Amino acid sequence: MPELRKDPIIGRWVIISTERGKRPTDFASVPAARSSDFCPFCVGNETKTPPEVYALRDQGTRPDTPGWKVRVVSNKFPALQIEGDLNRQGEGIYDKMNGIGAHEVIIETPDHDKTLSDLDEDTVAQVLSTWKERILDLKKDKRFKYIVVFKNHGEAAGASLEHSHTQLVAMPIVPKRVVEEIEGARKYYDFKERCIYCDIVSQELSDDVRVVSSNENFLAIEPFAARFPFETWILPKTHKAAFQDIEKNEIHHLARILKEILMKINAALNSPPYNFILHTLPLQGDNRNWYHWHLEIMPKLTKVAGFEWGSGFYINPTAPEDAARYLREIQVTTLKR
Amino acid sequence: MPELRKDPIIGRWVIISTERGKRPTDFASVPAARSSDFCPFCVGNETKTPPEVYALRDQGTRPDTPGWKVRVVSNKFPALQIEGDLNRQGEGIYDKMNGIGAHEVIIETPDHDKTLSDLDEDTVAQVLSTWKERILDLKKDKRFKYIVVFKNHGEAAGASLEHSHTQLVAMPIVPKRVVEEIEGARKYYDFKERCIYCDIVSQELSDDVRVVSSNENFLAIEPFAARFPFETWILPKTHKAAFQDIEKNEIHHLARILKEILMKINAALNSPPYNFILHTLPLQGDNRNWYHWHLEIMPKLTKVAGFEWGSGFYINPTAPEDAARYLREIQVTTLKR
Repeated sequence: MPELRKDPIIGRWVIISTERGKRPTDFASVPAARSSDFCPFCVGNETKTPPEVYALRDQGTRPDTPGWKVRVVSNKFPALQIEGDLNRQGEGIYDKMNGIGAHEVIIETPDHDKTLSDLDEDTVAQVLSTWKERILDLKKDKRFKYIVVFKNHGEAAGASLEHSHTQLVAMPIVPKRVVEEIEGARKYYDFKERCIYCDIVSQELSDDVRVVSSNENFLAIEPFAARFPFETWILPKTHKAAFQDIEKNEIHHLARILKEILMKINAALNSPPYNFILHTLPLQGDNRNWYHWHLEIMPKLTKVAGFEWGSGFYINPTAPEDAARYLREIQVTTLKR
Repeated sequence: MPELRKDPIIGRWVIISTERGKRPTDFASVPAARSSDFCPFCVGNETKTPPEVYALRDQGTRPDTPGWKVRVVSNKFPALQIEGDLNRQGEGIYDKMNGIGAHEVIIETPDHDKTLSDLDEDTVAQVLSTWKERILDLKKDKRFKYIVVFKNHGEAAGASLEHSHTQLVAMPIVPKRVVEEIEGARKYYDFKERCIYCDIVSQELSDDVRVVSSNENFLAIEPFAARFPFETWILPKTHKAAFQDIEKNEIHHLARILKEILMKINAALNSPPYNFILHTLPLQGDNRNWYHWHLEIMPKLTKVAGFEWGSGFYINPTAPEDAARYLREIQVTTLKR
């Protein structure tokens, strides 16, 4: 059973997940290059993954067989385990609980050679709808307080399988970064009676120096205090606290801007590894007025060094205004062929 | 002039340091392999660095010439700039100030081929004394609120020059991580009237399952909620808030345990890249009763992926107890030859 442990000083929870099987000696040698001969996410290999929990499929096809467009399965090496209770307990000054949670993989396409930005807009929209459906389903489990949806693209960004996929982790705590965002946003709301993210959207549209793209419902910007070169955020233009409240026509606009941004980043930076993370409302508690969901995209271009780790103080060698201008000027077409 | 910018939501400051010269197009190609032909930190190349600000030298030798044992120079590509005033200002909802600070390099040995753990204990002690001297000197500049001392060892850990060195950055803000530690430690102190780090030292000595090594003044442990496999902390056994208050005999004990831990990590993990960061008392303010300096050492063994970045929620595949047992059992000798 994985264990959740809390740092007694700053309150950050970590997952100690020894089931993932890294014993001390496993680190001593360089990991072997991964074979691309066999891919459990490819069509025809459906029985090589845990059973599917959700799929968008052709009519009449059965689960765990070909005929799917988007397919969701449990992670074969889950960081958290679905069965059991939390069993919170102390150990002297320390706090821990069982590592209960869900860890799923959203396989975005049957085609091994396509990345998310290669998919047409309708297919990207299907992937985003799948995120929504999985959140709505997992939200029913009252043990969970937060669901994080994220993507590691490319080996340097932590992807362990090449075939394009998003991951989802439902967990019994709200992660520290989200708690900080909520506390910061609440302080601002107490002072101004406005959502800080709404004010950011408004100032960015008016300044127009960090905007990368904008459509009917969404804005893509390089944030003012970007930690990384070409860090890009996508936000709903009007106040929306929880991702899963997104409506059908909004999903299409989100698919369009996400594909556009990924294509621009690929064109500008030679298809770099990247991560993105959905920041959305915790499942419990009343933070709807001040929290505002958004997607943070981080191309992995620089090595994060000790200074950054140790201090939480980042050095970014590219001004967000320069990155925004550069990305804005790149022309891409997201239209369907 | 570099710029310090504050994230309006969570209050984290970042350095936008465009002088370091990464324009968007610089990321498009893979960086060239670094030549080891020329090293500005080697003996004889003293004029190829900025002038030395401090050195331990043989009697009668002049600055910026050979004859040094440890040498401190300004970073040739500083993240912060020493001249100027802070000029705090707003920009709509955003906050920024000039990137004022000092960025120094402590060259630990004239020998290009030695790493910190190869140096004998007396030389490691000289390096640590140099940290202390530089902190005491920079502390006089009232613009600075914090000094971070850190090491990036190995290219994968962000080192841009191979020759063994530590870096020091004096800055006009206290980094977010340290603020969090101080706030957490103060809450504990308010509740218990004891330093939380002192309680950690006491519990770890009594549990004796996460201790890697211990000597007269210092304790090395794998922390209970370690973020990374083999993350190791070194703490003074009795309450000490500020690193620069360290006394001469304590420096020798610190040198011994630091060398020992690095040797153990090298033996266990095939000399991995690593980072370490000194966490010490901010230069201003009254936090002496609850803060306790320590050194955090993080071997770079796993890729930190999107999940970690986005959530501040880490997955560690090695239990600290296992790592501690493994490191404890490795025999190394730190004795002088």
